[in-house]
Amino acid sequence: MADSAGELGFIAWLRDQIGPAPGVIIGPGDDAAALRWPVDRELLVTTDMLLEGSCFRLSEAGPRRVGRKAMAVNLSDMAAMAGVPRAAVVSVGIPRSHGRELADGLFHGMKQLADEFGVAIVGGDTNTWAGELVISITLLGEATLRGPVRRSGAKPGDWIFVTGPLGGSIGGHHLDFTPRVREALALHQQVDLHAMIDISDGFARDLHHICAESGCGAVVFADKIPISDAATGLSDGKTALDHALGDGEDFELLFTVSCDDGQKLISDSAKFRVHHVGECVEHGVWIERASSKEPLESFGYEHGFSD
Amino acid sequence: MADSAGELGFIAWLRDQIGPAPGVIIGPGDDAAALRWPVDRELLVTTDMLLEGSCFRLSEAGPRRVGRKAMAVNLSDMAAMAGVPRAAVVSVGIPRSHGRELADGLFHGMKQLADEFGVAIVGGDTNTWAGELVISITLLGEATLRGPVRRSGAKPGDWIFVTGPLGGSIGGHHLDFTPRVREALALHQQVDLHAMIDISDGFARDLHHICAESGCGAVVFADKIPISDAATGLSDGKTALDHALGDGEDFELLFTVSCDDGQKLISDSAKFRVHHVGECVEHGVWIERASSKEPLESFGYEHGFSD
Repeated sequence: MADSAGELGFIAWLRDQIGPAPGVIIGPGDDAAALRWPVDRELLVTTDMLLEGSCFRLSEAGPRRVGRKAMAVNLSDMAAMAGVPRAAVVSVGIPRSHGRELADGLFHGMKQLADEFGVAIVGGDTNTWAGELVISITLLGEATLRGPVRRSGAKPGDWIFVTGPLGGSIGGHHLDFTPRVREALALHQQVDLHAMIDISDGFARDLHHICAESGCGAVVFADKIPISDAATGLSDGKTALDHALGDGEDFELLFTVSCDDGQKLISDSAKFRVHHVGECVEHGVWIERASSKEPLESFGYEHGFSD
Repeated sequence: MADSAGELGFIAWLRDQIGPAPGVIIGPGDDAAALRWPVDRELLVTTDMLLEGSCFRLSEAGPRRVGRKAMAVNLSDMAAMAGVPRAAVVSVGIPRSHGRELADGLFHGMKQLADEFGVAIVGGDTNTWAGELVISITLLGEATLRGPVRRSGAKPGDWIFVTGPLGGSIGGHHLDFTPRVREALALHQQVDLHAMIDISDGFARDLHHICAESGCGAVVFADKIPISDAATGLSDGKTALDHALGDGEDFELLFTVSCDDGQKLISDSAKFRVHHVGECVEHGVWIERASSKEPLESFGYEHGFSD
C-alpha cells in the first residue's frame, strides 16, 4: 500500500465511497490501515488469489461477477472457520489494454458483496501490467467466543453434513454462489462443530482433507449426496453423482458433528437446511452404494503445480 | 486459503518449515489462520502486489530476490506507519512453464526476510497459470503504544528528513534494500513523528503525498538531498539530483518532526543517520537552490492506469 493508485485506482474510489466503519481507525489511503481489534476475539486471516483463465474467464463472466467472486471465495473460507468477516484489503493487476470499465465493474462487484456481509474494505494496491487480470484479497475476521472451527476435529462416529446441493458449478454457480457465512455462524451457535471446510476442490477431495487432518476415515452414502440441477443437466458422459463428488467450487460447507448433534440438526430442518451424507470411521474414505462399498478416491480439482 | 496447493506449493512447504510462533493459534494449512492479538495494540494491515515486467524482471533478478522484494515492500509500508511487523499471508500465481526451482527460490527469499524481521508466515494461496509471475503479500503488524504514524500530520515549520541516500534504485537497490523497520521504531520512540511515508513513488511525488494529506506545503533544500552512488553513476542526460528527486523505490523513510525534535535528531547523529532536507511551509511544494526557488513538481513513478 505504498503505491498510489492512478486516478482510476481502487483506493481513490474507495476513499470517495466509504464512511467510517466500526473499529476502523485508519481506512484506505495511508501506508497501512489501522483497526481496533476486540479484546476477546481471535483474529482470523485468509487470502485467495483469482487468475484469468484459471479461476474465471473475464470475457464470459464480466468484471462485476469476477470482482464479486474474488470477495466471495474469501468469505467462504471465513465461513469454513465459523468466523465473522470484518475487513479486507484488495490487490489487483489489471491488463494495461483495459480501462475504467473493467476497474469499475470489479470494484463494484467486490464492494457490493463486502457491504452485504459487513466487511470494510480498508486498503489495497491497484496496478496495471502487460499480463492478464489477477485479483488477490485478504480477509480478516473475528472468531466467535466458541473459537474457530478447524479441519482437524472430526472423530469416528461423527455424522457428516453438507449445506447444499453439489456439482456442476461451472454452469455459473462458481461465480454467483452465496458464501455460507450466516449458515456457519448459526450452526456454530447451535451445535459443536467438530471439523469444517468449504468445498472448493470438490466434495471428495475436501472430505479427504478433513480426514487427513483429523486422522480418521469416512463413509459416504451415495444415495444421500444432494445433487444440483446444474450437475443433473450435464451430458458429458459422467454421471450427475460423479459431478457432485468431483466438481470443484461448490462453496457449500462440509462439516462433522457428533451423532447427537446430527440428530438435532435433522429434527430442526425448518432452521437448518443441511444434508446428512455420511459418517466418520476409523480408517479409509469409502462410498457406500446400494450393493457395494468402494474406496472414494481424492479426485477433483488440484491447485498448484501441474508439472 | 481454501485452496490446497500441489505438493510443490507454499503451504505444504511452510508446514514443514515452521514451528509454533508467538500469538499464532492456527498456522498454515487450514481455511484461515488464527492469531491472538495483543489487547492494547492497534492492528495495522498493508498489502502490495508485485507483477513481472512491472515491479521486477524475473530473468534478471532471479526468484530469491523477487521473493525477498515482495516481503520487503510490505515491511517498508509497515515501517512507514512505525509498526512492528508480525504476520503475513502470501499469494502467488506461478507461470505453468516454471517448476520447483522458481517456487523454492521465491519462498526462500520471502521466508528469509520474514525471519529476519520476526514475521510469521501464517498462510497463503499457491496457484499456477498461463500468465506471468505475480506475488501478493498482506502483512499484519502492531502499532506501538504511541500509535501509528500517518501521512497527514505534517505542520508548517516542521523539519523534513529522509533516512538515506536517494536515486538510482533501478541499479539493484529496489531489490536488495533493507526496509527501515528498526529505524522507524527507534525514531518513534525518541521523537514525535508528525508524518511519515516510505519513498516508493519517488521523493518528489511522496513529498507531495505528505503535503496533500497534511494540508501544508514544503521547501526542499537542493544541496541537502543525499544522493546515492547509484544515481551519481548514471549517465542518461538527467542529473544525479533529478534521479534522487524522481526515481521510485528508494524505500527510505520521508518524515517530518518539530524543529526542536529535528535538532535533537541532528545532535544525536551517532544514533540516527538521518538527513535534514527541507521544511514544511503553508502552501506549495518548492525546491530551493543557491540562487532560486522553484516549484517542485510531483514527478516520479505513478502506479495505476496509464491510459
